[in-house]
Amino acid sequence: MPINTIVFDAYGTLYDTQSVSAITDKAYPGYGDAIAQIWRLKQLEYTWLRSLMRQYEDFASVTRASLNYTLRLLGLPIDMTIFEQIMDKYVHLDLYPDALSALASLQKSQLAILSNGSPSMLTRLVQNSGLSSILAAAISIDEVQTFKPSPQAYGLVEQKLGVAPCDVLFVSSNPFDVCGAKAFGFKVAWIERVSPEAMASAFRHCETVSPLTMFQALRQQMDELGYAPDFRISALSDLAGVVSFTQTMGLLEQTSSGLKI
Amino acid sequence: MPINTIVFDAYGTLYDTQSVSAITDKAYPGYGDAIAQIWRLKQLEYTWLRSLMRQYEDFASVTRASLNYTLRLLGLPIDMTIFEQIMDKYVHLDLYPDALSALASLQKSQLAILSNGSPSMLTRLVQNSGLSSILAAAISIDEVQTFKPSPQAYGLVEQKLGVAPCDVLFVSSNPFDVCGAKAFGFKVAWIERVSPEAMASAFRHCETVSPLTMFQALRQQMDELGYAPDFRISALSDLAGVVSFTQTMGLLEQTSSGLKI
Repeated sequence: MPINTIVFDAYGTLYDTQSVSAITDKAYPGYGDAIAQIWRLKQLEYTWLRSLMRQYEDFASVTRASLNYTLRLLGLPIDMTIFEQIMDKYVHLDLYPDALSALASLQKSQLAILSNGSPSMLTRLVQNSGLSSILAAAISIDEVQTFKPSPQAYGLVEQKLGVAPCDVLFVSSNPFDVCGAKAFGFKVAWIERVSPEAMASAFRHCETVSPLTMFQALRQQMDELGYAPDFRISALSDLAGVVSFTQTMGLLEQTSSGLKI
Repeated sequence: MPINTIVFDAYGTLYDTQSVSAITDKAYPGYGDAIAQIWRLKQLEYTWLRSLMRQYEDFASVTRASLNYTLRLLGLPIDMTIFEQIMDKYVHLDLYPDALSALASLQKSQLAILSNGSPSMLTRLVQNSGLSSILAAAISIDEVQTFKPSPQAYGLVEQKLGVAPCDVLFVSSNPFDVCGAKAFGFKVAWIERVSPEAMASAFRHCETVSPLTMFQALRQQMDELGYAPDFRISALSDLAGVVSFTQTMGLLEQTSSGLKI
């Protein structure tokens, strides 16, 4: 069956979470990369830990806590004006350069976001980036008070859009999200932004590495959680090809089941 | 009330997970630290992710998967003999140098382990390190099929030892475990093995850092999850002092409530 609904992860998939580095480096010269990577790594850790501890707080709160953790461990002074300026970038994250044209090319399908972001963060991010008119919905996991990759989070897509999981193409660059979505029953496309060759090369003959390299090692290679994506692409602009493929395959499947009868 | 039951986390608290570095570096010269840190970081991520996905597999399986992930991303060839030699270290991890004497000094209390480890891994580790006769129990979370910091995992202590959470002193060097145990209701001692000063210093004027420094930044500083330990100590050998303190406080509390009457 062809795919008529495409659901995107937001942070790291449509929006470049690395785009905080410019402001973190301006605020704390020489620490921009360390702040950006540790912040993002801890932010997701905290979503998992709070979900498991059954101590949910929304993504805005978790994002503040992880930034606070990061500045503290680096021994950096916390000035609340600067802190709020850095936080504000989270509702003005850069779209990936190919995001707008990729979404425009997919408008025959229903397009939506399913994100860890709190409703307020997500609404502002979508508005600020000009995606409001393109998206049918920006769904926050806040309603179920547990973060991805909990099946409860993915279950919101059917509740909100009325589409069965097997009819959804879910798109994420985050391997944990790919595995969670696949375990739940979506068709899944993984945007692989760092090739295995580049990854291996970054560690070769290196006793020390950049925090970005550690981030890529920990969060941008496909996880070993027993699930694999249906499609492995290198950019959002490859999605039109995936959709064409599922349409062709849909016709083939129809023909095929027709033939069986 | 004085503390009569002390429950220890195993990996990273009694047993030094860093002690795998010698064998990983021998197996893959120049990569010992990268393997040790990425492996441990992903191992715990996988416990959280599988718990949240409701796709439990035991700690032995998760430990193999995370080692496999690590070798693959570093572009290292996987030889099954070497793989098994590295895995075998997980049932022969070094005790921290002060562990045996610290445990011996606490023997007036009931001593136990509560660990993510699978029953088989844990039994072998405890036997190989000579702790069998000192511990009243080595409790595995395997029975509840969900890893720490789920409250279900900590709930096993009362089920197995018959001691109420508020009468347990839980000891861990892992900040996520400290927060989970505190949220659950234990009294908690955190072993802070990397001081804030050493941590901040490791990043000062450095564009690149060792994988060990990133591990310490991500997993050895107190987390911002809304909970703080009751006791912050720097080594297992400080525990005798904590127990004396709770006994004195217990007497004071008794006197105090006596006085109120």
